[in-house]
Amino acid sequence: MSLEEPRIVRDELLCSGRRVKLFRRILARGEDEIEKDLVSFGSSVVIIPLLDDGRVVFLRQYRAAIASWILELPAGRVEDGEDPREAAIRELEEETGYRAQYVERVASAFVSPGYSDELMHIFIAKGLKPGIPHPERGEILEKVLMRPEEYLSDLDSVKDMKSIASILLLLHRAHE
Amino acid sequence: MSLEEPRIVRDELLCSGRRVKLFRRILARGEDEIEKDLVSFGSSVVIIPLLDDGRVVFLRQYRAAIASWILELPAGRVEDGEDPREAAIRELEEETGYRAQYVERVASAFVSPGYSDELMHIFIAKGLKPGIPHPERGEILEKVLMRPEEYLSDLDSVKDMKSIASILLLLHRAHE
Repeated sequence: MSLEEPRIVRDELLCSGRRVKLFRRILARGEDEIEKDLVSFGSSVVIIPLLDDGRVVFLRQYRAAIASWILELPAGRVEDGEDPREAAIRELEEETGYRAQYVERVASAFVSPGYSDELMHIFIAKGLKPGIPHPERGEILEKVLMRPEEYLSDLDSVKDMKSIASILLLLHRAHE
Repeated sequence: MSLEEPRIVRDELLCSGRRVKLFRRILARGEDEIEKDLVSFGSSVVIIPLLDDGRVVFLRQYRAAIASWILELPAGRVEDGEDPREAAIRELEEETGYRAQYVERVASAFVSPGYSDELMHIFIAKGLKPGIPHPERGEILEKVLMRPEEYLSDLDSVKDMKSIASILLLLHRAHE
């Protein structure tokens, strides 16, 4: 590496929310000290639930942080000690009711590395058996079945970044 | 809409970081009150700098929040009162030195709507003229020129979500 890697001097907890914590992270680089934001969230999963007819199970979901409804793939946090694969199966069932016979990890990516440590694992879920959703309290959502191409057809309307990446990865794999 | 939309009762500022603020957002839905995290960041841009030879200008960047180096596209915050298009041109020049003769918005997407209000606009930049980068203090980065397919070829290594989405959108448009 041609650039010098900074050293983490310390993390100062500023405050805790319901699921995230905000820290001040102090870095040292040569003589210089640099201060950065760190939103601590941990790992998460997003699931591409692919039905046998080629449609994907999306959610129309009310998101408080953006004060609006958004069409996105099922997703959620990996709980402490949980395997990402198990988290994907659990979140899919909680949010959509579908039980997956088969899940495969497609990629893993940082969601907003400028200030958040969130690392998200993208899974494809197949062999889906319908069931009854049981969302957590405060999750306001309903299922929307749609073909992948349909989700991407109207890029003038605002989308969800993880869903754009996931759906395009699905199509990219199909074309390989 | 078949689901009832919650009402925002109030936002309570928990604390402020360098660039983000953490709020507790209280929603009302029927008789129920729900508490949600809100990391306030605002709008941002990511730029796909496409050279005439088909290569894309990436950055190898140290990101404090994830305590590691990551290969990602140039990106940054839209400042108060700034137009996203101007922000894209400014961030590209600050981080890479390249001046774009032409930028086009491809899509806009929420980055992590579960807890963050960050809305990111994806731009393609063309007609690039090289110059001298002048990153902000605390930005630790260097240019890496790479073909889009090369970025996507090794999906077993951890990537950057906005860069996966943007590069796949670039390829998707080329195939349409």
